[in-house]
Amino acid sequence: MRNPVDHDVQNVFRKRWSPYAYDPDRDVSSEQLKSLFEAARWAMSSFNAQPWRYIVGVRGRSDDIWKGVYETLVDGNREWARNAPVLALGLAELNYEHNGKPNRHAAHDLGAASASLALEAAARGLAVHQMGGFSVDRARELFDLPDGVEPYTAMAIGYPAERGTGEGELEKRDSKPRQRKALNELVIRGGF
Amino acid sequence: MRNPVDHDVQNVFRKRWSPYAYDPDRDVSSEQLKSLFEAARWAMSSFNAQPWRYIVGVRGRSDDIWKGVYETLVDGNREWARNAPVLALGLAELNYEHNGKPNRHAAHDLGAASASLALEAAARGLAVHQMGGFSVDRARELFDLPDGVEPYTAMAIGYPAERGTGEGELEKRDSKPRQRKALNELVIRGGF
Repeated sequence: MRNPVDHDVQNVFRKRWSPYAYDPDRDVSSEQLKSLFEAARWAMSSFNAQPWRYIVGVRGRSDDIWKGVYETLVDGNREWARNAPVLALGLAELNYEHNGKPNRHAAHDLGAASASLALEAAARGLAVHQMGGFSVDRARELFDLPDGVEPYTAMAIGYPAERGTGEGELEKRDSKPRQRKALNELVIRGGF
Repeated sequence: MRNPVDHDVQNVFRKRWSPYAYDPDRDVSSEQLKSLFEAARWAMSSFNAQPWRYIVGVRGRSDDIWKGVYETLVDGNREWARNAPVLALGLAELNYEHNGKPNRHAAHDLGAASASLALEAAARGLAVHQMGGFSVDRARELFDLPDGVEPYTAMAIGYPAERGTGEGELEKRDSKPRQRKALNELVIRGGF
């Protein structure tokens, strides 16, 4: 299933989505993961501050981190994210390194980096499902986060389950039509 | 010049950058612009709230909006952005529509959408340069923004000037090496 786009876009934008049904038996190689985070690395950012930070737990390679991220998730997310071979957190450095002042764009730029990561994943047949449903406090505690580093998202990364092989309830959620607001709802003044 | 990546990524991540020297004589078609914003439209967002909003001014098609965005820019950005045929603002809807509560991920998700837009642009030989340097208050006033819609970025969109045809000082800025932190500085716990 591809995203039902209204205007021509690169294939990767048709392919990117956030699945619930992951293939629990298919691991993600180190090389693949490096490429995902490399894409994030080249995002744009205010003053090129690159405020994005990540915590990355890989099943079988860094199980303690995987379990830590899992533990921060709300129940509704644990339910499906337990099948993802990689669980990560996306965090932002809230202050500029060059002058210590608050970076108004920290969360914005983390979003840019994480979108890049998700698009690189989509191009590789992988998927990233980002979640707001996790405990920021628990993350702060478990990973002993320094002041000024703010967790914003949890992420499940892996291969989506092949249709018909995943858990029924999750596949049902994945088969819902993908919807977006119309372009003219996003553009509130001016136009093309 | 491509971004000097350390790990294999899709071409679009090598190509995306934020130029200073735009070709002032080359307009961007409506069709191209629709594709850019279509890519933004399909970004991921918390509760699929799609909090990203845009104001889009096109030279020759919506000059009043172009001039309005230009007027919000700080001098240092006016200096080069005046050559861009499209000037836009990126804004976020700060509260969820479904329950009126604050959306902690509004700016994050705007960043995701705007990164998508910039990547679609890069794939088409266009470029987007995002700026934090503009007056939020002036934008609010000029565009009569509703409460809860927060401007985060200004954007210059257009074709980069062909090497050797742009203004010397701007081309000099564009020829600086592009740098990023190492991957292991971004990943603060765990790994690949």
